[in-house]
Amino acid sequence: MPVRCMAVLTCCLFSAVAGAQSASRELSVMPLPTAYQLGQGQLTIDRSFTVGLTGFREARLNRAVQRFLNTLSRETGIAFAQDCVKACVGLGVSTRHGSKPVQELGEDESYSLEITATGATLNAPTPLGTLHGLQTFLHLVHATPTGYAVPVVSIQDKPRFPWRGLMVDVSRHFIPLASLRRTLDGMEAVHLNVFHWHLSDNQGFRVESKKFPKLTSEGSDGNFYTQSEIREMISYARDRGIRVIPEFDVPGHCTAMFVGYPELASGPGPYQITREWGVMDPAINVTQESNYKSLDVLFGEMAGLFPDQYFHIGGDEVNGKQWDVNPAIQEFKKSHKIKDNAGLQAYFNQRLLKIVTGHGKTMMGWDEILAPEVPKSAVIQSWRGQQSLADAARQGYRGLLSNGYYIDLMQPASQHYAADPLSGPAAALSPEEKQRVLGGEATMWTEYVSPENLDSRVWPRTAAIAERLWSPQEVTDVDSMYRRLMILSAQLDALDLTHNSQYVHDLERLAGGTDIAALKVLSDVVEPVKGYTREEMAPAPASSLTPLNRLVDAVPPESDAARIFSREVESLLTSPTAATSADLRATLAAWRDNDAKLQPLFQESFLLKEDAVLSTELAQLGSTGLQALDYLEHGEPVPGDWKASQLAIVEEAKKPKSQLLLMVAPAVQRLVEGKGGATAK
Amino acid sequence: MPVRCMAVLTCCLFSAVAGAQSASRELSVMPLPTAYQLGQGQLTIDRSFTVGLTGFREARLNRAVQRFLNTLSRETGIAFAQDCVKACVGLGVSTRHGSKPVQELGEDESYSLEITATGATLNAPTPLGTLHGLQTFLHLVHATPTGYAVPVVSIQDKPRFPWRGLMVDVSRHFIPLASLRRTLDGMEAVHLNVFHWHLSDNQGFRVESKKFPKLTSEGSDGNFYTQSEIREMISYARDRGIRVIPEFDVPGHCTAMFVGYPELASGPGPYQITREWGVMDPAINVTQESNYKSLDVLFGEMAGLFPDQYFHIGGDEVNGKQWDVNPAIQEFKKSHKIKDNAGLQAYFNQRLLKIVTGHGKTMMGWDEILAPEVPKSAVIQSWRGQQSLADAARQGYRGLLSNGYYIDLMQPASQHYAADPLSGPAAALSPEEKQRVLGGEATMWTEYVSPENLDSRVWPRTAAIAERLWSPQEVTDVDSMYRRLMILSAQLDALDLTHNSQYVHDLERLAGGTDIAALKVLSDVVEPVKGYTREEMAPAPASSLTPLNRLVDAVPPESDAARIFSREVESLLTSPTAATSADLRATLAAWRDNDAKLQPLFQESFLLKEDAVLSTELAQLGSTGLQALDYLEHGEPVPGDWKASQLAIVEEAKKPKSQLLLMVAPAVQRLVEGKGGATAK
Repeated sequence: MPVRCMAVLTCCLFSAVAGAQSASRELSVMPLPTAYQLGQGQLTIDRSFTVGLTGFREARLNRAVQRFLNTLSRETGIAFAQDCVKACVGLGVSTRHGSKPVQELGEDESYSLEITATGATLNAPTPLGTLHGLQTFLHLVHATPTGYAVPVVSIQDKPRFPWRGLMVDVSRHFIPLASLRRTLDGMEAVHLNVFHWHLSDNQGFRVESKKFPKLTSEGSDGNFYTQSEIREMISYARDRGIRVIPEFDVPGHCTAMFVGYPELASGPGPYQITREWGVMDPAINVTQESNYKSLDVLFGEMAGLFPDQYFHIGGDEVNGKQWDVNPAIQEFKKSHKIKDNAGLQAYFNQRLLKIVTGHGKTMMGWDEILAPEVPKSAVIQSWRGQQSLADAARQGYRGLLSNGYYIDLMQPASQHYAADPLSGPAAALSPEEKQRVLGGEATMWTEYVSPENLDSRVWPRTAAIAERLWSPQEVTDVDSMYRRLMILSAQLDALDLTHNSQYVHDLERLAGGTDIAALKVLSDVVEPVKGYTREEMAPAPASSLTPLNRLVDAVPPESDAARIFSREVESLLTSPTAATSADLRATLAAWRDNDAKLQPLFQESFLLKEDAVLSTELAQLGSTGLQALDYLEHGEPVPGDWKASQLAIVEEAKKPKSQLLLMVAPAVQRLVEGKGGATAK
Repeated sequence: MPVRCMAVLTCCLFSAVAGAQSASRELSVMPLPTAYQLGQGQLTIDRSFTVGLTGFREARLNRAVQRFLNTLSRETGIAFAQDCVKACVGLGVSTRHGSKPVQELGEDESYSLEITATGATLNAPTPLGTLHGLQTFLHLVHATPTGYAVPVVSIQDKPRFPWRGLMVDVSRHFIPLASLRRTLDGMEAVHLNVFHWHLSDNQGFRVESKKFPKLTSEGSDGNFYTQSEIREMISYARDRGIRVIPEFDVPGHCTAMFVGYPELASGPGPYQITREWGVMDPAINVTQESNYKSLDVLFGEMAGLFPDQYFHIGGDEVNGKQWDVNPAIQEFKKSHKIKDNAGLQAYFNQRLLKIVTGHGKTMMGWDEILAPEVPKSAVIQSWRGQQSLADAARQGYRGLLSNGYYIDLMQPASQHYAADPLSGPAAALSPEEKQRVLGGEATMWTEYVSPENLDSRVWPRTAAIAERLWSPQEVTDVDSMYRRLMILSAQLDALDLTHNSQYVHDLERLAGGTDIAALKVLSDVVEPVKGYTREEMAPAPASSLTPLNRLVDAVPPESDAARIFSREVESLLTSPTAATSADLRATLAAWRDNDAKLQPLFQESFLLKEDAVLSTELAQLGSTGLQALDYLEHGEPVPGDWKASQLAIVEEAKKPKSQLLLMVAPAVQRLVEGKGGATAK
């Protein structure tokens, strides 16, 4: 059976057929499997449902089944029997053999899942595939007219890329273990298999070191993980088929290390924990021999703590200013014939590589570590762009794409979904070179992320990236992605992820009570500003001490309401119906009338008053949209000055305020422009 | 200063002055303090805010301050500095002396809280008062135009009753510790001080016994607490100023004990764990001497495990059927001149009292234990009514009110709020007799309560009961109670209670995704049927195995939307404004149009299809209401047949369907009846 082709066909079929019908024949699974064949009928899930394990057995699989049943209970409200008395197996799980004691890059993660009307079978070569298959099964469960059920389907599945990661920066804001465990739960749900732990930066060193205790006693504000907590996390991750890669960023981005150990730095101390963001001057003195001894001891200790083969040394964004003003370093450059700071960093990396390799690890780093002297075993993580990834692959390096997956930049899921590690410059790579592209990683930098809003910054958008890295390249239907993403988002709620619940809580906090209806009308249609513009338009310089308690911190990165409104507007412009019109009118009227309800609230709270203008503009957009609908539907000629004045209102509404964007302005503009505008686009 | 009087005056002032102004001068605190005086100005809460402890010190107080700061962070989004370098105390806390090593009934729980524009002082004789004062401070925090702040206020506070409890039945549905810890967090927030743990019943025995291991190995489905978990809970409760009273219900309601130990029962075994609800026949053989030996050993073990002075032996609802058909028991009755089964139970209670007293405990039980032979030291918990409580007090027994506080019956907070332990028959008691009324307990029986919806069944309504038991008897303003209850509800969210978030999750589960807007329009205006009618209208006999995943299990016991709609209707009928009219029209139109959106969903899900008729009726109510508004506002004469036909529609809509009630039907009826109807009422 031509497995890959089938997925392509199914996918194209979806795009061709309209709306509900295609949606109902589509698997509500994310990431979409490599290949699947939907049959007729379904397997009912009721209280008698159980799971039976055969083949290879281990405690991890038992725990996985228990977790599976717990989640299934949350999804259905059914308490399943703890033990099966006799032949009541609903899902038979057969695992062929064990996986590596420490999970390795490229291990077999495939599985097949056969569901018939009388039972289901999950087969996998290793427990990794079994874990993925169980998650796919959970996605398939839904209420039907006759009960909870999974559809009759045959699934053959395996990942497109072996490295599918999520990086979390726990330095700029410390993220406690409870939040990280939830993150791993979410990662398991979407088959992500690498947790990249950005453990040190200017704002904090977050791992207990027994060799260098001042790293945390001086450099963490008391916010760090003990070694036993680290081991616990690694074992929690292994249970979920997830590798843990530690990153210790050097020679820049490590001011927090200098607080306790100023002798590592290139300039005189004393140093303080950095509270601001950005590229800072302090950098390790890479010319000082004693520093390599220290790093050898530290990385040796950390290499022992983190069992994964890969060890990330950061290496990004060194501005070299401390090097430039240190005479001894300048002297060293001259005597070693190093012509610039890039050369100095390359020298450092070569030394570091020996240290890392000496501890049995494979070194990886950001783009900047790429230099002719660095051996081909190093792995390059590309944050600068697809070109650097393609270049690295051509030069023989293995690499990962992170450019395009910067989830801190508040871009929509669709944009991340469109970024493919093998598109653009990488599309022209030879098959051998393409093999060197291992996959990608979403990166959660935490300048504006606290334990409170971590979940909403990571989920559900990261699931779209997970699908990009798992599913066939041809799976690109954005409508289908969003349909499934919304279902998945609810399933992630069942894992206690707080991306939805915390939003409500934040609004309650802003509104000073539970009556958040009016505030939510506004907040549902705004998004935080994109890219690095939040920095630029900060009312005051932000730091890690700035409370993240404003509306911009509460609202999801992507407005579902705005996306849906926009789609309805397009639908009205292309094929108007009375129902669409009525829906749009109700929405627009609600916006128009909402401002009067909200204004008193703005007066009461220092946190909300900055949002008053957004509310007024939303009301204007509501009025404008209603008038535009009248013109459109009564077929009256639109007065030129009316159009001009309304477009001016829309333009003003498009400008960011309070670091927020009114995401419905463009769709209102489409209404004002009318059918002509639509054609002109 | 006449402390009590001031509270009364303030309270009356609230009722007399209209709306916003009175609300803004009211403390957003629940329970309302005994006495307080609001001043001008406020104390700002920013990152520099800290707490300083003086006077009596203990680890519990340090933990309380840490917990206080954590909650304050959740309430404000501000990360407070861990340590204070110099004089940066915002709240000075002074505790005079320690409290008893095991918390006792009637210990001093008072405190005073003085907040000025420059600082705050909390003074309390014991840590119990300190804990209460910290919670009151947390309630006071709110966003103001210039920042987070607490108002300048002087509070003198102490509880009206010394026993303010919440009972949770963990037998009918097992409730895991994580949920119970949240429950204790919520109790602390509203000054409740007794957690009554209903640990055994027909459906499960939930405590590990080392003396009788089969109690849990045979009688719990594996769902029980180990002794070390029990100790952990007790210490968690003590940290929050809460006593833990265990209840082992005997001689009825204990079938689960008979599964492992059938020799305790009055009829031949074998026994199975009961899955159904109600009063069952099995009862302990109270005539068998060996049973007293067993109970002595078991209760001895449990008396050692639970340090509180009070020990609850249940004693309710014995139907006596097993006794009636056991010849040996009949023989015993004859030989001991016991004339009926009540006498038999009294005999049992006397024996039990000796056992319980022998282990140094004070016995308590439900109404039924009250018999002339029972000594006055026993405490009576009244579930049957206020008369039995008053009778007990007159006879010299101390007692608690639970009748009126049965939160499983899905009554509104206002109804519980109106139940006063010293009103009705108890109002006529002498001051000495009134002293015997110790307080009351909300009772959470869990026939229809799972770990998923426990929080929404307990909160926020229990806070109204907490206020009844804490605040002066004269605090009875229902509007004020609801205003503060809604604010408190949001604050409970900050403690991770799930009464709000789980509702959304349940709707997502029912809707199969995150787009729950249309479903929520319906679910927001329905409530579960009241009292014991759910049993009567069950489509099939319910049991502990029945999934609690229907709409009736998801919706809150009390509809805020319906209450607010009803208030708006009254406002329109008495003093109509254009704004009220527009608001009502928007709401009614949304109901009218919602059904078309929801019907497709009903067809897709076996769980939702039963609710289709409710949705249709809500649409009809919307249309009816809109027409009624037209008649009302255009002053047209209302055709008699129109009115009759609409009232018929309303009557039909009032009838329960799917164990749910459309709570907005009565207010729509008021619209149809118009001003004349209003007068006629």
